[in-house]
Amino acid sequence: MNVRECIVSAPGKAILHGEHAVVHGKVALAVSLNLRTYLWLKASAPGKVCINLPNIATFMSWELSDLKLLAPESCGKRDESKLLDAELVRRLREFIGVTNGNLDTHSMATLAFLYIYLSLFGSGDLPSLTVTVWSELPTGAGLGSSAAFSVCLAAGLLSASGAISTPLRDFDNTARWCQEDMELINSWAFQGEKIIHGNPSGVDNAVGTWGGILRFLSGKIIPLSRVPLLRILLTNTKVPRSTKVLVARVKDKINKFPSIMTPVLDSVDAISCTCERILAEMTSQPITGEHYNALEELIDINQHHLNVMGVGHPTLDTLCRVTQARGLHSKLTGAGGGGCGITLLRPETDSSIVQSTIQDLKDCGFDCWETSIGGPGVQQHSPASVKGEILEIFSQY
Amino acid sequence: MNVRECIVSAPGKAILHGEHAVVHGKVALAVSLNLRTYLWLKASAPGKVCINLPNIATFMSWELSDLKLLAPESCGKRDESKLLDAELVRRLREFIGVTNGNLDTHSMATLAFLYIYLSLFGSGDLPSLTVTVWSELPTGAGLGSSAAFSVCLAAGLLSASGAISTPLRDFDNTARWCQEDMELINSWAFQGEKIIHGNPSGVDNAVGTWGGILRFLSGKIIPLSRVPLLRILLTNTKVPRSTKVLVARVKDKINKFPSIMTPVLDSVDAISCTCERILAEMTSQPITGEHYNALEELIDINQHHLNVMGVGHPTLDTLCRVTQARGLHSKLTGAGGGGCGITLLRPETDSSIVQSTIQDLKDCGFDCWETSIGGPGVQQHSPASVKGEILEIFSQY
Repeated sequence: MNVRECIVSAPGKAILHGEHAVVHGKVALAVSLNLRTYLWLKASAPGKVCINLPNIATFMSWELSDLKLLAPESCGKRDESKLLDAELVRRLREFIGVTNGNLDTHSMATLAFLYIYLSLFGSGDLPSLTVTVWSELPTGAGLGSSAAFSVCLAAGLLSASGAISTPLRDFDNTARWCQEDMELINSWAFQGEKIIHGNPSGVDNAVGTWGGILRFLSGKIIPLSRVPLLRILLTNTKVPRSTKVLVARVKDKINKFPSIMTPVLDSVDAISCTCERILAEMTSQPITGEHYNALEELIDINQHHLNVMGVGHPTLDTLCRVTQARGLHSKLTGAGGGGCGITLLRPETDSSIVQSTIQDLKDCGFDCWETSIGGPGVQQHSPASVKGEILEIFSQY
Repeated sequence: MNVRECIVSAPGKAILHGEHAVVHGKVALAVSLNLRTYLWLKASAPGKVCINLPNIATFMSWELSDLKLLAPESCGKRDESKLLDAELVRRLREFIGVTNGNLDTHSMATLAFLYIYLSLFGSGDLPSLTVTVWSELPTGAGLGSSAAFSVCLAAGLLSASGAISTPLRDFDNTARWCQEDMELINSWAFQGEKIIHGNPSGVDNAVGTWGGILRFLSGKIIPLSRVPLLRILLTNTKVPRSTKVLVARVKDKINKFPSIMTPVLDSVDAISCTCERILAEMTSQPITGEHYNALEELIDINQHHLNVMGVGHPTLDTLCRVTQARGLHSKLTGAGGGGCGITLLRPETDSSIVQSTIQDLKDCGFDCWETSIGGPGVQQHSPASVKGEILEIFSQY
């Protein structure tokens, strides 16, 4: 079986508002982050399946004959894509030598790839193919890098299998799939996320698939119909933290001071809802400075609330102070306690201010990118639409 | 008529929790601040009434014969002490040449003194007396300096008039009045406050009179029965601000984002109530580190909420950061937007840490005092119980 070469990409994810509060039944807004993961799928030497993950120095190759032995009996059917095939996962773990406690990125990425590959192709001819993935996202920073990877795998392999179309037409730079195909991509990406994370919320793969902004409430994920693209800085303080520990810390604080903390969660809920309303206005009315003033105020208020919840960190205070000194507004995004923060840029924010701010933040020891939120989800690319530096990486494999 | 010499003092005031929220019907805790105002009353040369306010370089002297002409017809009766005698105020303003718009400290202090003096003595013999007042409180910093002044005036002049007892017995260092006398002091002090401020809430004079901690809700002021004495640092950022502008700013923000801000006010209310409960526990149970941990957490949370209300200031952020670096917790007190902040000290906080912190804060350009909150209200002193530096100031007049 021959596969058609294709390039796909999926965005990362940030939480605009509602992190932590979402655990307690409040609304959160998850947004696509235009630091993207790119996947290049091409035919390989016959009888071989290869995956190249240069970001994490992982280069694996298997014989089709070996993989064939692991394939599940039934596979690739749409209605089966919701539940993980536990038996296949067990066989794959054994095959690549992953013990239960081993959760390193390298093994999890390999496992997710083989799982989706075998699930989609295992009942028929296994195609000889090579998948190369390059990501602009830092891993383990709460930016949905594993979901962007899973979405790319699902989109690339589903296209290769013919289960979904390849939407790119001649002369297109990029193209997106129809609703039905995206649902299938999302569903298989969720499988990948389950393998990597165990019990994911499904938000990260939904953002990677649909892009834009999603409203997340009590497990229900609803994409907002139209959203503006917002310029931001994404800053990684590089302070490692445990989401589990931070979630527990918030819970403890709520238990300790229920009458004080419950209204704070209500206020965060109202921030998400107010932000949603403002974003909707920004697509239905001319965008004004007032819209941005309000978005900035919401960011400041929520950052204080997150500090009240006990998930701040001195580096995040530094981020806020440094950007405030340039007239910019920041908040942590995700779990907090270090990790990443976002800084809103206004349309009129001068490039010199942006560059100075990035330099200030780098001087603090942080990584910092100028990017945007609210952009498209998974898409197929013509090679011409992919940045030269990424094509150059791809050309090495 | 001869007056008996006496020395009285009254504390300043700080808001422990609930500033701004109190304007919107939430509980506030007002506490006595042990930076005190001292008043020394003694007989003067016959036919003369003098007031010396060396803090504000004000030294006034009047002939009894002139004052006699201003005296109201009826005066000094307890049941009349609630309403201001508008006619007397008008005559006094004319006498000392205060136009309506003139609100300088010097004129207001003089007016309050003459009003209480003439109200209490005007119907009988006017006594020849000199009042000298020295305050440890900065003026105009929201620390109730005018109320401490009014309370001292009321206590000193009521004692001199015989309307209340002079509670100090031989060999006592300090003494306080009975409940009934304190109510009279408070009521006359409120008159002084009305002259100085126009429409005071009555909290400042109540704190100056009763001391300790008062619960303030919808105009009702209730002293907490027993409260612990808490060591604090009081820092004056010296950034001038307008309470009126700040109150309006909070109101605007509530109007702009009602669903976000209303829960924040509810949370502040819960902070005041929780703090009240913890303070009560600290007098009924052995005080533990947990009590102080909780007080610190409440301070941090409320400081964030005050920032959310928009009444923070970069200097207050600096105060919090500098003290946090020494393991201490701070919040603004009062109107915010500059002004003063309080820093809780634990019983075990080492003097060297306190001294270094004070130095750090002075290096930021702030004034800083080590003092306490929750101490006694108005009291009479034996000269021996007054600090030497204050006696020395008094001895000059």
